[in-house]
Amino acid sequence: MSAQMYTLAELAQAIGAEVRGDPELTVDGLATLQSASSTQLSFLANPAYAKYLSSTRAGAIILSEEAAERYQGNVLLHANPYLAYARLSHYWDASVPGSDSPIHPNAIVDESAVIAANVRIGPGAVIEAGAVLRDSVIVGPNCVIGRDSELGEGSRLHASVTLYHGVSVGKRCILHSGVVVGSDGFGFAPNAGKWEKIAQIGGVIIGNDVEIGANTAIDRGALDNTVIEDGVKLDNQIQIAHNVTIGENTAMAACCAVAGSTRIGKNCIIGGASGIAGHLEIADNVHITAMTMVIKSLKDAGVYSSGTGVQPNDKWRKSIARLRQLDQMASRLKALEKLVKSRD
Amino acid sequence: MSAQMYTLAELAQAIGAEVRGDPELTVDGLATLQSASSTQLSFLANPAYAKYLSSTRAGAIILSEEAAERYQGNVLLHANPYLAYARLSHYWDASVPGSDSPIHPNAIVDESAVIAANVRIGPGAVIEAGAVLRDSVIVGPNCVIGRDSELGEGSRLHASVTLYHGVSVGKRCILHSGVVVGSDGFGFAPNAGKWEKIAQIGGVIIGNDVEIGANTAIDRGALDNTVIEDGVKLDNQIQIAHNVTIGENTAMAACCAVAGSTRIGKNCIIGGASGIAGHLEIADNVHITAMTMVIKSLKDAGVYSSGTGVQPNDKWRKSIARLRQLDQMASRLKALEKLVKSRD
Amino acid sequence: MSAQMYTLAELAQAIGAEVRGDPELTVDGLATLQSASSTQLSFLANPAYAKYLSSTRAGAIILSEEAAERYQGNVLLHANPYLAYARLSHYWDASVPGSDSPIHPNAIVDESAVIAANVRIGPGAVIEAGAVLRDSVIVGPNCVIGRDSELGEGSRLHASVTLYHGVSVGKRCILHSGVVVGSDGFGFAPNAGKWEKIAQIGGVIIGNDVEIGANTAIDRGALDNTVIEDGVKLDNQIQIAHNVTIGENTAMAACCAVAGSTRIGKNCIIGGASGIAGHLEIADNVHITAMTMVIKSLKDAGVYSSGTGVQPNDKWRKSIARLRQLDQMASRLKALEKLVKSRD
Repeated sequence: MSAQMYTLAELAQAIGAEVRGDPELTVDGLATLQSASSTQLSFLANPAYAKYLSSTRAGAIILSEEAAERYQGNVLLHANPYLAYARLSHYWDASVPGSDSPIHPNAIVDESAVIAANVRIGPGAVIEAGAVLRDSVIVGPNCVIGRDSELGEGSRLHASVTLYHGVSVGKRCILHSGVVVGSDGFGFAPNAGKWEKIAQIGGVIIGNDVEIGANTAIDRGALDNTVIEDGVKLDNQIQIAHNVTIGENTAMAACCAVAGSTRIGKNCIIGGASGIAGHLEIADNVHITAMTMVIKSLKDAGVYSSGTGVQPNDKWRKSIARLRQLDQMASRLKALEKLVKSRD
Repeated sequence: MSAQMYTLAELAQAIGAEVRGDPELTVDGLATLQSASSTQLSFLANPAYAKYLSSTRAGAIILSEEAAERYQGNVLLHANPYLAYARLSHYWDASVPGSDSPIHPNAIVDESAVIAANVRIGPGAVIEAGAVLRDSVIVGPNCVIGRDSELGEGSRLHASVTLYHGVSVGKRCILHSGVVVGSDGFGFAPNAGKWEKIAQIGGVIIGNDVEIGANTAIDRGALDNTVIEDGVKLDNQIQIAHNVTIGENTAMAACCAVAGSTRIGKNCIIGGASGIAGHLEIADNVHITAMTMVIKSLKDAGVYSSGTGVQPNDKWRKSIARLRQLDQMASRLKALEKLVKSRD
Repeated sequence: MSAQMYTLAELAQAIGAEVRGDPELTVDGLATLQSASSTQLSFLANPAYAKYLSSTRAGAIILSEEAAERYQGNVLLHANPYLAYARLSHYWDASVPGSDSPIHPNAIVDESAVIAANVRIGPGAVIEAGAVLRDSVIVGPNCVIGRDSELGEGSRLHASVTLYHGVSVGKRCILHSGVVVGSDGFGFAPNAGKWEKIAQIGGVIIGNDVEIGANTAIDRGALDNTVIEDGVKLDNQIQIAHNVTIGENTAMAACCAVAGSTRIGKNCIIGGASGIAGHLEIADNVHITAMTMVIKSLKDAGVYSSGTGVQPNDKWRKSIARLRQLDQMASRLKALEKLVKSRD
């Protein structure tokens, strides 16, 4: 692949930036200040990296007004360099397949499926009866779209995504490989020492602009739906149980697990590998740090944590031995306080 | 899809319930007391929801004798409403594909595979040499069944399940999308700073009535087999390492990890995201709460836990700092006790 | 399948062992001392199992000189019986498909892909434009190899592996089913309460002799690459975020999560279900025990841990209640020390 080339003038216009330097300079890629070559564009968003401004070989840099004062080379001036970088990153994105064949001859599309204009379907993909693929949907190779499921306008499934029946995905969503949506929730009635399966007859409703990372699984509801609201971003390897609701624009890092019927608010940030028990309420604007065990509702916005930090193994062994004795230690301390006080 | 409709008389007969009210009333779905419409059936299993009896619009409700005394509408009387609900839930389950084509022309079935009566195989599925699919097995689209693997009568694989070679699955099992069974256990011999692979030449034996959730992985044994006994229920995103044994009717919630050669007893309940170290023995009837770290054998039935609960981040920072000083605190307490005692 | 049979002489020659007993004895399998039959070979590596030497029915045993002194039967003498076992295990490995058809007619191979000699591609596999498969590569059924990705000599993908575009895999690697490599890293710029996607335009570079377990996901870099060096072994269900580097010969057990831009050294051993936060440095030869939460860099070799061990639930409830009071307890202890001292 030959790299895409753009002039600074083109890029400035695209993001509403101002060029300081040579507007006709062409750049052929994006890179960090440390690794950029003279034909690449870079950016400075985190002040900790300002020290690299003096040594970078980047052909041009996206800078704020303030940072630009300390730099003599070509600059794209922008009030929010990180956002500018985010938008320009798509100019060098090779991830969208450029197939000329809208529906690959090796895709298997049921004749009752509704396929809108500009839809692309990769080889080996299976589109079951009654499925609806709206305008400009892309379905990667070896995906499976279950009966009566729907993909909204512009949504895109990378290879090997599996949707069960009756799953609704909104507009402009991105689902990564290995994602499963609509699998049965974990529901069984105990009966004489065995488990009787409860059919999971709810669905999954996914809003617009949702991204779901590789190998994440989202179960269908038992009776009502599992709901992922607009703008939610889920990282890889996440587990969302039946009847969970995740509020708008909440972002959840990799390997989190959310148990059944829990409701997570809007604009939350959930750190990686955290677990949230079932039937809880998490308020809007809650920030949970990585690997936290959430076993009660969090009714107020704020930052929450649990877990014990890493220690050398020998010290850790002492810590956890003492932790087991902590209740006894508390009693001894109380007794000693009483004894000392009695001698007043 | 038009919803399935049943009369209360039909449903009562199916589950051995008694109708109180209009036996000819038809219902077209199941829902919670809060959301049911007048054409839907509901149920009351958890006393906490009894408060909704007075306001529900449900057409009929599955109730115990006792609860029915407080309700005037149409009722299906049953000694165990939750179990009755479990059984009736299947009447509205849309998950079983209704294909008229038993073996899809786009399935790839090796000519040496044994395919019994009433087997259905979805498009894109690959059945390798020597595989055996017993009566009424269903294999979803894009599944792969490895050489010489076997699926017992009535077992069902949703789309995109992968079985390696030499895997045995019992009767009436359900495997969800993204499940992998029979991958290599993690076995290497150290040699001069590198790792030499140990071929994993055991298999995986899965009993009858086992359900395995989306994206769960079960490794094959190193020499002997990995064994999942009858009636075991595994949720999503679980990891079962080589040579693990899981006893009958044990249920394990999502994201658990069980390390190599550990034996888990019968009728255990393992909370989500728990980790169980290798070479341990877990007794029958053990209940482990969510996110527990199990690093020793649990020889007696009972409830076990570990982990630290969620706190506001500032308090958590103090807690874990103090935890690191705990051994020192214990020494100081002991010294102080000695000093105070010496002044007796 | 009929089992493979070998004479002790053949096996001894293969691994540089010495036969003590009947070199013409044929064995047809490998098993543990406890379960081996008279036609099987066994081994003793862990001294804890020496007690089974007197009762084993194994036809022959791989033993060290020292252990062999206590055993009268047929022996393969080897200085490192565990390594000898590792090497002989491959003689009974049924995992390599024996297809006569190098490229299955139901594989979909883009005409611009480069397919070297002795390559085998299973049915339903999709090889996109510009992909390069070097000598003796094996791609299992229903795998997807993205545009311009490359698989080095002798590398092998089990069924249902998905590589995105621009992923480079070295020589002799093994990727298990459900593995996803090259999915987008989790990168978004906040803008007015929403998240704007940052295209992930780096790639993934995987060295030689790397093994990756079932359902593990490795994200592509944001700008630079995610790098997995030679000889790394990753177990199942692992999450590797964008721009992580994992050093040579490091082994990581199942369900670990490594957040973005963290660098892990060489020859590390990372226990299962551990989480490592982003932007950290882990030194060479670090050993992290299972379920550890690593939230700071570990600059020195050694063994590290965190977490609290399992307790009966009632005791655990007291421990974590006391842990929340620990800061207050520390203050009370300090006050009491001061008071007692003041009475000197």
